[in-house]
Amino acid sequence: MRVLGVDPGLTRCGVGVVEGVPGRTLTMLGVGVVRTPADAELGDRLVAIERGIEQWLDEHDPEFVTVERVFSQHNVRTVMGTAQASAVAMLCAARRGIPVTLHTPSEVKAAVTGSGRADKAQVGAMVTRLLRLDAPPKPADAADALALAICHIWRAPAQNRLQQAVALHASKGRTA
Amino acid sequence: MRVLGVDPGLTRCGVGVVEGVPGRTLTMLGVGVVRTPADAELGDRLVAIERGIEQWLDEHDPEFVTVERVFSQHNVRTVMGTAQASAVAMLCAARRGIPVTLHTPSEVKAAVTGSGRADKAQVGAMVTRLLRLDAPPKPADAADALALAICHIWRAPAQNRLQQAVALHASKGRTA
Repeated sequence: MRVLGVDPGLTRCGVGVVEGVPGRTLTMLGVGVVRTPADAELGDRLVAIERGIEQWLDEHDPEFVTVERVFSQHNVRTVMGTAQASAVAMLCAARRGIPVTLHTPSEVKAAVTGSGRADKAQVGAMVTRLLRLDAPPKPADAADALALAICHIWRAPAQNRLQQAVALHASKGRTA
Repeated sequence: MRVLGVDPGLTRCGVGVVEGVPGRTLTMLGVGVVRTPADAELGDRLVAIERGIEQWLDEHDPEFVTVERVFSQHNVRTVMGTAQASAVAMLCAARRGIPVTLHTPSEVKAAVTGSGRADKAQVGAMVTRLLRLDAPPKPADAADALALAICHIWRAPAQNRLQQAVALHASKGRTA
């Protein structure tokens, strides 16, 4: 399973590609950041993010794209930009027919560290260990993108079982 | 000046095209709504919005696109969807090199009714009068999109004067 994780942001969009299956060693295929200048027009920044994400999709041809779910508890300005950047990432994937999943920051932290309240350093340390890297990827957005991809790979079996159960339940409902 | 106004939303995205210059009669060239099914995947909904906006751009070839500025005071879920739909509209315009402007709801209301706190019915009534329509466009999102376009046309001279003043100030600063 090859997964592109995207930690969305207007200024820095973390991107990371991980390949693997649950219970086996994971491999990092690429990590980076799509940046846009803070003084550019919003529309032009979204175009730059689209171009960046398209390049990552072209190069790595992932089977899944997973994006951090955005909440609006935080700073208003930042959240709007994050929601807009995430929309572009989801659009690029869906346009190619690649399934998109969303994971909350606490789901991601819990998946890679065992605690939903782990800090950035702990996430970075676990990503480094799980992918057998020499050092934590910098900036943190890049490490978070890899953590998202790992979270997707590890949670996929549970999600598939859930979907199968829902489908089974629905088909029973129809025949009942 | 031909302007496409977009009142962004995931379920209903209001779109309206108005042509005119400040101080002259305005003409409505088109109005409608881009809809996406609430039960579809988010990524697919964004693709549907992209397709809808592209059709409006193809058909009307506007010189400006103006989108309602999204705030996050309101319902969290709705706001995220609105921010994501607005990102797609801005992306489509910017990709074609069409300048994008943002206006707040109160700027739009003040422009067409004289009061930033006007209600939907008042905005609908003024849009109907200003564009010489037989009845207020339905749903309200469509009327709001037309109001956005009118707001852009009427505010453009003031914005241009402001930009010229800023440019003049900057050039004086450089030569001082």
